[in-house]
Amino acid sequence: MSSPPGHLHKCTDITVTPVKTTIHFSITDHVGALDECLAAIKALNISLTRIESRPSKTAEWDYDFFVDFDAASHDQVGQVAKTLESLAKQVHIVGTGGVNGDDLPDSTPWFPRKMVDLDTFADKVLEMGEELDADHPGAKDAVYRARRSEITKIAKAYKTGQSIPHVEYTKVEIDTWTTVFNKLITMFPDYACREHQYVFPLLIQNCGYRPGAIPQLDGVSKFLKDCTGFTLRPVMGLLTSRDFLNGLAFRVFHSTQYIRHHSRPLYTPEPDVCHELLGHVPLFANPDFADFSQEIGLASLGASDSDIERLATIYWFTVEFGICRQGDQLKAYGAGLLSSFGELEYCLSDKPEIRPFEPAKVAQQKYPITEYQPVYFVAESFKDAQMKVREFANSCSRPFSVRYNAYTESIEILNSKEKVLRYAHSIKSDIVNLVEAMEKL
Amino acid sequence: MSSPPGHLHKCTDITVTPVKTTIHFSITDHVGALDECLAAIKALNISLTRIESRPSKTAEWDYDFFVDFDAASHDQVGQVAKTLESLAKQVHIVGTGGVNGDDLPDSTPWFPRKMVDLDTFADKVLEMGEELDADHPGAKDAVYRARRSEITKIAKAYKTGQSIPHVEYTKVEIDTWTTVFNKLITMFPDYACREHQYVFPLLIQNCGYRPGAIPQLDGVSKFLKDCTGFTLRPVMGLLTSRDFLNGLAFRVFHSTQYIRHHSRPLYTPEPDVCHELLGHVPLFANPDFADFSQEIGLASLGASDSDIERLATIYWFTVEFGICRQGDQLKAYGAGLLSSFGELEYCLSDKPEIRPFEPAKVAQQKYPITEYQPVYFVAESFKDAQMKVREFANSCSRPFSVRYNAYTESIEILNSKEKVLRYAHSIKSDIVNLVEAMEKL
Amino acid sequence: MSSPPGHLHKCTDITVTPVKTTIHFSITDHVGALDECLAAIKALNISLTRIESRPSKTAEWDYDFFVDFDAASHDQVGQVAKTLESLAKQVHIVGTGGVNGDDLPDSTPWFPRKMVDLDTFADKVLEMGEELDADHPGAKDAVYRARRSEITKIAKAYKTGQSIPHVEYTKVEIDTWTTVFNKLITMFPDYACREHQYVFPLLIQNCGYRPGAIPQLDGVSKFLKDCTGFTLRPVMGLLTSRDFLNGLAFRVFHSTQYIRHHSRPLYTPEPDVCHELLGHVPLFANPDFADFSQEIGLASLGASDSDIERLATIYWFTVEFGICRQGDQLKAYGAGLLSSFGELEYCLSDKPEIRPFEPAKVAQQKYPITEYQPVYFVAESFKDAQMKVREFANSCSRPFSVRYNAYTESIEILNSKEKVLRYAHSIKSDIVNLVEAMEKL
Amino acid sequence: MSSPPGHLHKCTDITVTPVKTTIHFSITDHVGALDECLAAIKALNISLTRIESRPSKTAEWDYDFFVDFDAASHDQVGQVAKTLESLAKQVHIVGTGGVNGDDLPDSTPWFPRKMVDLDTFADKVLEMGEELDADHPGAKDAVYRARRSEITKIAKAYKTGQSIPHVEYTKVEIDTWTTVFNKLITMFPDYACREHQYVFPLLIQNCGYRPGAIPQLDGVSKFLKDCTGFTLRPVMGLLTSRDFLNGLAFRVFHSTQYIRHHSRPLYTPEPDVCHELLGHVPLFANPDFADFSQEIGLASLGASDSDIERLATIYWFTVEFGICRQGDQLKAYGAGLLSSFGELEYCLSDKPEIRPFEPAKVAQQKYPITEYQPVYFVAESFKDAQMKVREFANSCSRPFSVRYNAYTESIEILNSKEKVLRYAHSIKSDIVNLVEAMEKL
Repeated sequence: MSSPPGHLHKCTDITVTPVKTTIHFSITDHVGALDECLAAIKALNISLTRIESRPSKTAEWDYDFFVDFDAASHDQVGQVAKTLESLAKQVHIVGTGGVNGDDLPDSTPWFPRKMVDLDTFADKVLEMGEELDADHPGAKDAVYRARRSEITKIAKAYKTGQSIPHVEYTKVEIDTWTTVFNKLITMFPDYACREHQYVFPLLIQNCGYRPGAIPQLDGVSKFLKDCTGFTLRPVMGLLTSRDFLNGLAFRVFHSTQYIRHHSRPLYTPEPDVCHELLGHVPLFANPDFADFSQEIGLASLGASDSDIERLATIYWFTVEFGICRQGDQLKAYGAGLLSSFGELEYCLSDKPEIRPFEPAKVAQQKYPITEYQPVYFVAESFKDAQMKVREFANSCSRPFSVRYNAYTESIEILNSKEKVLRYAHSIKSDIVNLVEAMEKL
Repeated sequence: MSSPPGHLHKCTDITVTPVKTTIHFSITDHVGALDECLAAIKALNISLTRIESRPSKTAEWDYDFFVDFDAASHDQVGQVAKTLESLAKQVHIVGTGGVNGDDLPDSTPWFPRKMVDLDTFADKVLEMGEELDADHPGAKDAVYRARRSEITKIAKAYKTGQSIPHVEYTKVEIDTWTTVFNKLITMFPDYACREHQYVFPLLIQNCGYRPGAIPQLDGVSKFLKDCTGFTLRPVMGLLTSRDFLNGLAFRVFHSTQYIRHHSRPLYTPEPDVCHELLGHVPLFANPDFADFSQEIGLASLGASDSDIERLATIYWFTVEFGICRQGDQLKAYGAGLLSSFGELEYCLSDKPEIRPFEPAKVAQQKYPITEYQPVYFVAESFKDAQMKVREFANSCSRPFSVRYNAYTESIEILNSKEKVLRYAHSIKSDIVNLVEAMEKL
Repeated sequence: MSSPPGHLHKCTDITVTPVKTTIHFSITDHVGALDECLAAIKALNISLTRIESRPSKTAEWDYDFFVDFDAASHDQVGQVAKTLESLAKQVHIVGTGGVNGDDLPDSTPWFPRKMVDLDTFADKVLEMGEELDADHPGAKDAVYRARRSEITKIAKAYKTGQSIPHVEYTKVEIDTWTTVFNKLITMFPDYACREHQYVFPLLIQNCGYRPGAIPQLDGVSKFLKDCTGFTLRPVMGLLTSRDFLNGLAFRVFHSTQYIRHHSRPLYTPEPDVCHELLGHVPLFANPDFADFSQEIGLASLGASDSDIERLATIYWFTVEFGICRQGDQLKAYGAGLLSSFGELEYCLSDKPEIRPFEPAKVAQQKYPITEYQPVYFVAESFKDAQMKVREFANSCSRPFSVRYNAYTESIEILNSKEKVLRYAHSIKSDIVNLVEAMEKL
Repeated sequence: MSSPPGHLHKCTDITVTPVKTTIHFSITDHVGALDECLAAIKALNISLTRIESRPSKTAEWDYDFFVDFDAASHDQVGQVAKTLESLAKQVHIVGTGGVNGDDLPDSTPWFPRKMVDLDTFADKVLEMGEELDADHPGAKDAVYRARRSEITKIAKAYKTGQSIPHVEYTKVEIDTWTTVFNKLITMFPDYACREHQYVFPLLIQNCGYRPGAIPQLDGVSKFLKDCTGFTLRPVMGLLTSRDFLNGLAFRVFHSTQYIRHHSRPLYTPEPDVCHELLGHVPLFANPDFADFSQEIGLASLGASDSDIERLATIYWFTVEFGICRQGDQLKAYGAGLLSSFGELEYCLSDKPEIRPFEPAKVAQQKYPITEYQPVYFVAESFKDAQMKVREFANSCSRPFSVRYNAYTESIEILNSKEKVLRYAHSIKSDIVNLVEAMEKL
């Protein structure tokens, strides 16, 4: 039984037509200037599908605009951008093939700034149910492929803020789940980290984890939201590493909803709902692990392609295949391990090599996808791992810092004195509160 | 034309039967202990309507439970609590007539800890559409009263997380709105603070503010969420001061959805949708004002009755009737002023007395509800006002501190070393990020 | 018996010839550029008495120079400054009639940046022993005046870092002290604040406080250094308010060493060694009071004349005539009260008016110098008073912030990104240490 | 030419009679309780040479006492401690063979808490001028040995706070210096780190660095105090690693004052004044390096013997033999390199192995003392190295945290809520100041 691979895919170049585009731009001083901009866009024979305006994050009294349209080509998107640049400032193109605004260096890859920007990922999924690899156990099973396709439609249609539609799983699917579930729960007491074991009974009580029924993503997502603010979002198949990691910055985990092929219940060459629910979900209920995962996500926003690859490797050796020290024992916390009967036993045996978790080194480590890992890295704690990833991220080449605003579910780029000062104010406010709390203790 | 009163009501004691109750308790170490607890409750002939369990916020490996039931009386609630106290720890009764858990002093009034706890407020509304005061312009208009009743049903049924249902306003209602709207927009350029004027065009563009149509709460709420994380929540009528202020701790503003009586469009003795949309909403789009408002809310959680009264007075003289200095001019930012043609002009004239905003003094100030205020207080800035309210709150008698977790939409009580340490960790993490951002600037 | 006045004097303009001057300037990149500057100064026929160079605080690889010379006139000082400005940058004139460098706005009054800069104050003392006011009890006592003159020579010659020379007090002087001492110690248990009472026995044990011997400043200063880092520095007579307050920024308290006239042991129209030792010293051993006093000092650096006057008034109503709340009682902590038999009793009686300590209001309060105060202000705690003074200082007009570096005993002006960033780094380092300490608690 | 070894010696056990002892103890509430304690000590026939009392650092209203006496034996010291433990609390024995108070675990090795405690080190020096190793170039030169003995008398007599007496160096000594000086200054431009090169001209201008004269420690120490607060303290010979590192916690560097043997001016088997002045001094003028060095010192306070050895190894590979990256070049910053003609060239050649600075690994590295190092470690920056040492220190076994108070020149042990809270208050105060400064920028 091989380990299920993670959620990432290295390919980063995808083209889709028509080009669904969001342009984001800022106007100083007077909101009326928008009319000029809209007129200019319409003069290019483009019809807008959404216009949204907001108080600016860039400077105190500017306005930010977001307009959506379907462009005939990337060239046309470029034309629009050029037109706007002469009328507005901070022009930033969101969406497929998007480019960043001029508040960031030209070379910065596009990244989502609001949670709704994640909606654009659905168009860029790399592999879907219809076309399975030849060696996939379901590759020749037309019924299985059709069923996957049916389930992934949910993901295709899903928009931020919606409840995740329930899937009525078939008996065959439920049986597959039951086999995996029954097998793994015998392993957890000895192999899973304490955080996993602590949360598991809660998933049984609250989310219907049990043999005979596949838990619904929606209930699980709400449970996680309550615990740490993480939520699940259905995904059609593999995202690029960049998109997948970017989601983590918003505490959003892209989760499959379909299940592996019933012919080999203990094997899957790709993530499926068993892997998500039994491997990933329990850990995302832990606050320190949630912080850690988001840290990787934040580091990935606008990172260079090579930094994305390094972060994806760190993700691989932690969230998917991580081992941690608990007391004088080693335990598994990686979802790839926790959802794999065979590798879970193997990874804590004396066969593989064990090294300390040092992100700079982890990031360089080569790894196989289709067999057990020869090397694992041991985290001392999730807090410690988070600070190390932070340090690693700071050594990367990205020339700006970001923070996540959980109130507005958006990313703030800390590239102006005003924004840094606002951040400093909020920290000051927190420290005043902390000292007060310490005094009352 | 008199000023519309704020949203508060001093009465704090309300009885409702059957007693919808949520009990929250914690169990150490093993999740199975829940069974004992449930059996004990059932032995009292009580049937549970919800059972929810979560990782504990109180200590690292405890479990927290939340169970709902309808009790026949407060005595029965007490019986359940007593039974649980022998089996679990940290027993905390939520809901109408709720009491706090033993992690807080006995005398601490109940307060919501999760956003869903706000759902319990609907049963405790003090005044509703059906029974209007004799001097209310619509008191004798049965059609008007029936219409209000129809609209407040939305609020009665509303649950956390739902979209706010749209109301199809009648022509009469729309005309009332239009009269108010047209009148006030002529005043704003001269009297409204800069923050109000800055946001107003955005409300026109995004939320349909205009003559001839009443904006829907749902769109407005989503706009605010994007700006500052504030959301609106429909309310049937007046809440107690405690409940109303408690909502602000979650950045939730309880908003009416019905409109004043058409016979006197420029007058209303109570909050209505004109007051909310034209007075309150623009300010909640401002980050500093949002911080300030939440600060009052946080201070109100579990505060003594007398502190609630003092905070409600501060709320009155700021969010409802506040004036601020901008350059060398005074401008209005209180919603009671911004939605009142007459008082808006009066408050910036030389007739009323103007004093500096010092919370300890503001909190003592008596005020009339049915006529223009004789005294107003001037804030130097919202940031400054926030820090002053913080200081004031710290001088209050509440023996514990709280923080709001925007990820999980819940209140954390900072009454143990672990929780304070976790807070300290998050501040450390923020400072590391801040310094990094400063370096890249 | 009247209260002894404080240490301040409002006059701020004093001329002395020859003009002892220190010029401070910075050179970029290469230390050799100093030669040009020195040659240019010598060409003006001025001989330098000191040349000192240091790593720059202004930018990373600049050099800072400090040169001393005796100028014939202020014009000549101006000439030198002008010459240097063409060759160097950040030219800053220290010393009598000094002006600031161009890293600060032109209008900023001169202030000391290193502890040794306090040495320049000795030349600017306003009143000395020789010329006493007509109504001074010793005004016509030539022996007394000569004795004062003898003692103040110590202060005149004193340089930073030296031990304070011992004074062999005469029997008459010791008798005066003994009378004052015996009288006051009967009062302290009822009237002095807890901090004063707590430290007093330590002064008896360590510094020779007792009837029959006047404690030596040197021993007292070393004791204070150990407790809070405050030190005493002998002073000839009254300093300007500006100079006196500026000293507090360095935790330096300018103390007289002579004693009042023996004819009226319980009266003195000015500070004397009894006032310093019995009134001021015990409080400077308290960490919170030390922080508070330094806060006033830091606010005074480079403050405008009117802000100096306001700070001096705050100093008057706190360090000299402050009252504080302890439990449900009021107690004296001001040195003017604690060293005055009569006013100490009066101030806690029901005769004077008592108001809360609000710096903005205190700063406006008029006060008599030759009689008991009609109004006192009550501090809730020294920490609270410190934060309030900080807030007040921030509302003053000074366009820059400062911090004190206790390692190098110098003031850093936080007016560049580099300096603010260095400060942020040190705070980050402190928070990391704090969190670590909290974890180990 | 071999590298001069560092200042450390691993031996940690030394006995001296009579036992000069300081006992430190605390008394609650009333200072009078001291009399009982003193009486009890005198009853043991011990005469006290100093009694000092201070406000307590341990709790708000306690008193701390420090008494000195010469005990006949360690047993007698134990007797005194036992007697006091029944009368007082927090009994802590300072001085040779000292043990810690009961505010710390019994197993904690003694460490200095005030700068004056460093005075006890002089009695514990391991090797002095008189007895040189057989292979020391001056081993058989009686005149040289006598001369060293003469110079080390200064160190033996030196007490905290004094100026360092000047040494009139002989012509032979000056010639040795001149040879070393002339040789090394040709190397610095190519091999020394930028920080060293930046400060060197200042040492020429201010401290008399030049051929033909050996700079005096006193002037150099004052220069460093001005730059970073570091000071030099004369030392007779080798200290234990523990004592030497402990000194760094106070920003005190123990420096030799004698010079190597004239027969081999480019060689010395031990630190001498050339090594100190040309190798160490320039770096201690750099604020980041000063922070870094103090960090090692703070980590060493009360550390276990094995942690001391690890910290000494880190000291060896940084302060003595460190290499750093500057742009794309490597440069030397270790004093052992900068004062060694041969190794300075060698270390930047391609012969030795170069590894990244990772304290946990550095701490394990074996090293030769009498030949060039086969391995060097490269720091990215001093700030970065400081944070890494901090992290390393936190992973050590010491169960308490400390901070240095530069005002009182003492160590605070952060082992009570009060102390941690006081620290938190000071950080809060710093952040408020920082935010203010950022706003004014």
